[in-house]
Amino acid sequence: MSTGSPVGSHRVVSPAGALPQAADRLDPDPEITEDEVRISVERLNLDAASYRQLHTAHGGDGEAIRAEVLAIIERRGKMHNPVTGSGGMLIGTVDAVGPRSPLGLKPGQKVATLVSLTLTPLHISDGLARWDGDSEQVPTSGHAILFGRSIAAALPDDLPEHLALAVLDVCGAPALVRRVVERRAVEHRAVERHAHATTVAVLGAAGKSGSLSLAAAKDAHAAKVLAVVRDEIEAAQLRGTGLADHIVVADATDPLDLAETVQDALGGRGADVTVVCVDVPGCEHGAILSTATGGTVVFFSMATSFPAAALGAEGLAADVEMLIGNGYVPGHAEYALHLIAANPHLKDLFIDRVGKED
Amino acid sequence: MSTGSPVGSHRVVSPAGALPQAADRLDPDPEITEDEVRISVERLNLDAASYRQLHTAHGGDGEAIRAEVLAIIERRGKMHNPVTGSGGMLIGTVDAVGPRSPLGLKPGQKVATLVSLTLTPLHISDGLARWDGDSEQVPTSGHAILFGRSIAAALPDDLPEHLALAVLDVCGAPALVRRVVERRAVEHRAVERHAHATTVAVLGAAGKSGSLSLAAAKDAHAAKVLAVVRDEIEAAQLRGTGLADHIVVADATDPLDLAETVQDALGGRGADVTVVCVDVPGCEHGAILSTATGGTVVFFSMATSFPAAALGAEGLAADVEMLIGNGYVPGHAEYALHLIAANPHLKDLFIDRVGKED
Repeated sequence: MSTGSPVGSHRVVSPAGALPQAADRLDPDPEITEDEVRISVERLNLDAASYRQLHTAHGGDGEAIRAEVLAIIERRGKMHNPVTGSGGMLIGTVDAVGPRSPLGLKPGQKVATLVSLTLTPLHISDGLARWDGDSEQVPTSGHAILFGRSIAAALPDDLPEHLALAVLDVCGAPALVRRVVERRAVEHRAVERHAHATTVAVLGAAGKSGSLSLAAAKDAHAAKVLAVVRDEIEAAQLRGTGLADHIVVADATDPLDLAETVQDALGGRGADVTVVCVDVPGCEHGAILSTATGGTVVFFSMATSFPAAALGAEGLAADVEMLIGNGYVPGHAEYALHLIAANPHLKDLFIDRVGKED
Repeated sequence: MSTGSPVGSHRVVSPAGALPQAADRLDPDPEITEDEVRISVERLNLDAASYRQLHTAHGGDGEAIRAEVLAIIERRGKMHNPVTGSGGMLIGTVDAVGPRSPLGLKPGQKVATLVSLTLTPLHISDGLARWDGDSEQVPTSGHAILFGRSIAAALPDDLPEHLALAVLDVCGAPALVRRVVERRAVEHRAVERHAHATTVAVLGAAGKSGSLSLAAAKDAHAAKVLAVVRDEIEAAQLRGTGLADHIVVADATDPLDLAETVQDALGGRGADVTVVCVDVPGCEHGAILSTATGGTVVFFSMATSFPAAALGAEGLAADVEMLIGNGYVPGHAEYALHLIAANPHLKDLFIDRVGKED
């Protein structure tokens, strides 16, 4: 058994020197190195943006969509949509574990991979014959490879699979929100500033990452948690759940209106921590203006523009810390599943969103 | 005298509800509101990307470049290049100060504006007659408006104007590096972890923001400061300056090579703080891999891709904090000028870069 690179660079066919995500092509050879894990694949979950692009490009023709997904996987050795640059995740059973794998997985375990399909070596053995191309969920057979520095989560027994997947898909958000809120408390104690209690505003609070972020803020003992949603329908979904202390409706892409609404709800001050979970462009300036001096903005939306945030804060002379939402925090999967288990209202919100059936 | 919005939204002509930076058009009316400041303009410094675009579009025809810049300013009420989305900064003399301006400026002071020209109301009165269109430096006459939440720095008497401008242009970087390094010390003391001394790696260390970041890291008592540069010429520029403890040559866009070089230089560990000042795309993954678990990456390069950073860290299972480099930190201008004054080698590096003459 050979030794691999923990980041999987030994699997890169081209271009030389690239990491697996940046690579054109990976080698999905089923033989694993000492620190790799082989997964027997049961289902792919294509990223929503990727599936939407394929659906549009082929006018909704399921057969053509299926043929293209198969062609991408065969050509690239991974499901990496070249147009959207995105992938998705997969579910399967652990098939073989290298003796030096640090992932703690055991053969037979049912797992979801938490690293993107854009960097996961993948081979399909059934020609996607069981998929009609009509949904993002792709039942299939084949194998996938995890590297030393990969992440996979064991699927819990007590949650329907599709619900667990929906939670795991955004599990980085609550873990990072907890860390940011708790760190503020540590810093305040350390420098003996006037330790006012931390307020948290979540933009896009009724969505998957948004509602988990609300629960994490509460769990981290934020003094006041504000849910910002786009309309009355979403506000009604959150009411009575206990996830937020206040619920307000505002357009996150209208900076002045958003900032005024947030400040009104928080007694005239911006939020100490603002969490951006709204997946549309143009929320940067509103989030910055809604945050108190010395506060932190955590951007989870992939629609975030780096220059808009950097130049926006400078242009507004806003002394705020701006974090790129890292999807990986140690223990993130367990924490998100714990929040769901501990909070029936949150679980109901997820069920409303993803449906009851598996 | 009327009351304005501190972020200048009362100056937006269209579209309604936009902030000045996002606006198509601003109103440069010379009459100021209670918290505004009027500047008598002496020189514009067009952003390098903007000037390059104009130069290319007009095949280097100075007359045509001048006509287009004038047309942009007249049409938009600000120098906001619609193609690049960028602006620049300006120098002038304080002409009038509203009674409620919080900026602390006095009439007659010579200042540089530190907010982008993309959000600064501007009127030109001399038709740019003194500019030949052949350089980014535009000598002119006219007036500009600063809002309540703007930033301007008084130009120091003891530095040539062009040198001061070069320093002010990147002054957010050293202030944020100092803050991040000092915060680590506070946190380590607070949680009583094994408080190993902080190591800092600066990518693109020979440039303007890079060399100031080196000086700030030293000033903040980093235990080890590593300069990463692209070639031997840049390495030679830094040698003997005392700005870095180690100087290494590596390609920041080659993730594995960069990470190995950084770890070798730092005794087998990634940096606690990695500062990205390399203005080319594709440095995100290398920066993440060069950073120790629990460390911080500060992205100052405008070429940073938000999704590449967010998905890259997740794909590498890298538990690192990623900061969007905010160009505004209180006291940033004074701090950068102080570093230059206190460090003759740093000043010489800047003079080498921007030339001796004014």
